Amino acid sequence: MISSVRIVGSGLIGSSIGLALSGKNIPVEMIDSDERSQRLACDLVGSVEISNPEIIVIATPLNAFKEVFEREISLYPNSIVMDIGSVKIKPLQDVYTASPDFVNFVGTHPMAGREVGGAESARGDLFISRSWIITPSETTSRQAVEKVCELISLLGAQVISLDASEHDAAVARISHIPQILSSILAASLQSLPGEWLELAGAGLRDTTRIAASDHHLWKEIIHSNKEEVAQLLISLQKDIALMIDSLDEEEKIAEILLQGRAGKARIPGKHGGKAREYSYLPIVIEDKPGQLAAIFNECAALAVNVEDLTIEHSPGQLNALITLALTQKEAHILSEHLQSIGWNVHPVRN
Amino acid sequence: MISSVRIVGSGLIGSSIGLALSGKNIPVEMIDSDERSQRLACDLVGSVEISNPEIIVIATPLNAFKEVFEREISLYPNSIVMDIGSVKIKPLQDVYTASPDFVNFVGTHPMAGREVGGAESARGDLFISRSWIITPSETTSRQAVEKVCELISLLGAQVISLDASEHDAAVARISHIPQILSSILAASLQSLPGEWLELAGAGLRDTTRIAASDHHLWKEIIHSNKEEVAQLLISLQKDIALMIDSLDEEEKIAEILLQGRAGKARIPGKHGGKAREYSYLPIVIEDKPGQLAAIFNECAALAVNVEDLTIEHSPGQLNALITLALTQKEAHILSEHLQSIGWNVHPVRN
Repeated sequence: MISSVRIVGSGLIGSSIGLALSGKNIPVEMIDSDERSQRLACDLVGSVEISNPEIIVIATPLNAFKEVFEREISLYPNSIVMDIGSVKIKPLQDVYTASPDFVNFVGTHPMAGREVGGAESARGDLFISRSWIITPSETTSRQAVEKVCELISLLGAQVISLDASEHDAAVARISHIPQILSSILAASLQSLPGEWLELAGAGLRDTTRIAASDHHLWKEIIHSNKEEVAQLLISLQKDIALMIDSLDEEEKIAEILLQGRAGKARIPGKHGGKAREYSYLPIVIEDKPGQLAAIFNECAALAVNVEDLTIEHSPGQLNALITLALTQKEAHILSEHLQSIGWNVHPVRN
Repeated sequence: MISSVRIVGSGLIGSSIGLALSGKNIPVEMIDSDERSQRLACDLVGSVEISNPEIIVIATPLNAFKEVFEREISLYPNSIVMDIGSVKIKPLQDVYTASPDFVNFVGTHPMAGREVGGAESARGDLFISRSWIITPSETTSRQAVEKVCELISLLGAQVISLDASEHDAAVARISHIPQILSSILAASLQSLPGEWLELAGAGLRDTTRIAASDHHLWKEIIHSNKEEVAQLLISLQKDIALMIDSLDEEEKIAEILLQGRAGKARIPGKHGGKAREYSYLPIVIEDKPGQLAAIFNECAALAVNVEDLTIEHSPGQLNALITLALTQKEAHILSEHLQSIGWNVHPVRN
């Protein structure tokens, strides 16, 4: 049982943790350096004054962590402290610099969506079914790790334990480098004629989708993981150089593309399962309300589960191409059925 | 009126053109170097022997173009010839080398989906509402251009005229470079531990989606546009070098990310309209048949049009996060309604 939690930082993550905990009748105190944010978060969460918090959650931007940590442990030297930052070596270094003997700090990183921000968007269910990484060090006390795991499980998330350095290496690969490449690719579009961009298909849209991400958030994340990121960017420059050197020979180009297919195939399918080879079922629909609903009703009637979906539009026209990702068997069933009732399906027969 | 068309190459594009034309009662002859493919395409399309085709469509892989072109104009020196390749300077050069005085060739590039391949996947409606680029040169006869435009319009596509060099520069930017970056990024995942990849979110999935593309097709496309591609890859190396040099200063990182946001914002919204700022509405659903249908039924009942959609899954769990892209007004209406009937919506309040 967790007796009380003090949460410093009332953004999306901090406020969502607060909501979830107070929903479980655990006393929570919300703190924010911005007065309006603090008032809002306190109202939302039902914040109470806590004299001696069992756990302190530091949910500030990365750059504020060190100062907040120093203040908090001078106020509450016996509390367990956890953070929620997107990098994990830097806060560990901050803790060590501030207080080398402090053994009750656990770095953590909830893998929760970022589509929304601020206390206004907080939800107590934000972490349900999410992964939540913890990165205890060798000197972290067992008691601190156990309490933090208890808190995370209480929020409905799954604990995954990694070394801080392994965490930072992993997120550099699966998150920071994709973000940087997407941003660099999108930045290169700035100078293009508008007519060229009107020819853009799903490929360009997919590869640049995350280029729209919050640059305030991401500048801190990338900066805080700069050693890992720098190595990987240098490695990418070499990979690009290899492609440049391969351009004269089709088979060398094909070899790089094949490696890309092999890498892509390693990304797991949903639910952490093995990557599956989905069947893709393209359907041309009129682009108006009700078309997607009608198709999904047919899916539901057949108990067909749509694994993924893309929507592609033609410039200047009122049709859209949707492509459903399905298991091969379900793609076949759905395709036959939709065609039999007059939908414009383009099944792959193989 | 088009009197007859000979189509050389019975893949997805060639066979789809054949189906569409014979559906309009225009005599079509299907040709393929592979006997089985030719028989299949002939059966599908209702191919007839044509003694003197008005238009010859060369719908072969890029590498086969030159040889086919030479054969075809020796057989039918008075026909109009068009191709459908993904690059446009190379076939022009092939035509010039083979027959410098030939004025009845029009290079074209239909912007049609590639989710499916082969005559088996051909559909007469494949080009409806698609853009179809033509790249006539200064010496191309007006009569050839007019006939090719007539054919394209007959298939329901929209003609867009570009210089061949402008086409190749445009598709290098909006298609070939995104493909290469996606492949290189995905290739770099090959060596990663499986646990790291299980943490992958929508960002990695989006940026690597097209890495699964057909490497046979793409090796020819990239090779045939190697000059444009090489320049852009060198430019990307410089952009990556700039990011490496910026890693020590957050504001320099932010500047690159901001340029990415600006570039991303230039990609038009659907129907060739101005890029719109959509509102994104995240909804947590149980991952089982019927959930998407239920949501889209509510959308239809409210006449809300879903502009785009992503589906994100948590590893090992049975919930999914879907995010709908909507106009701001419709996002508000839908969000209020779905919440009122008990859906787990996470609206952005701003």
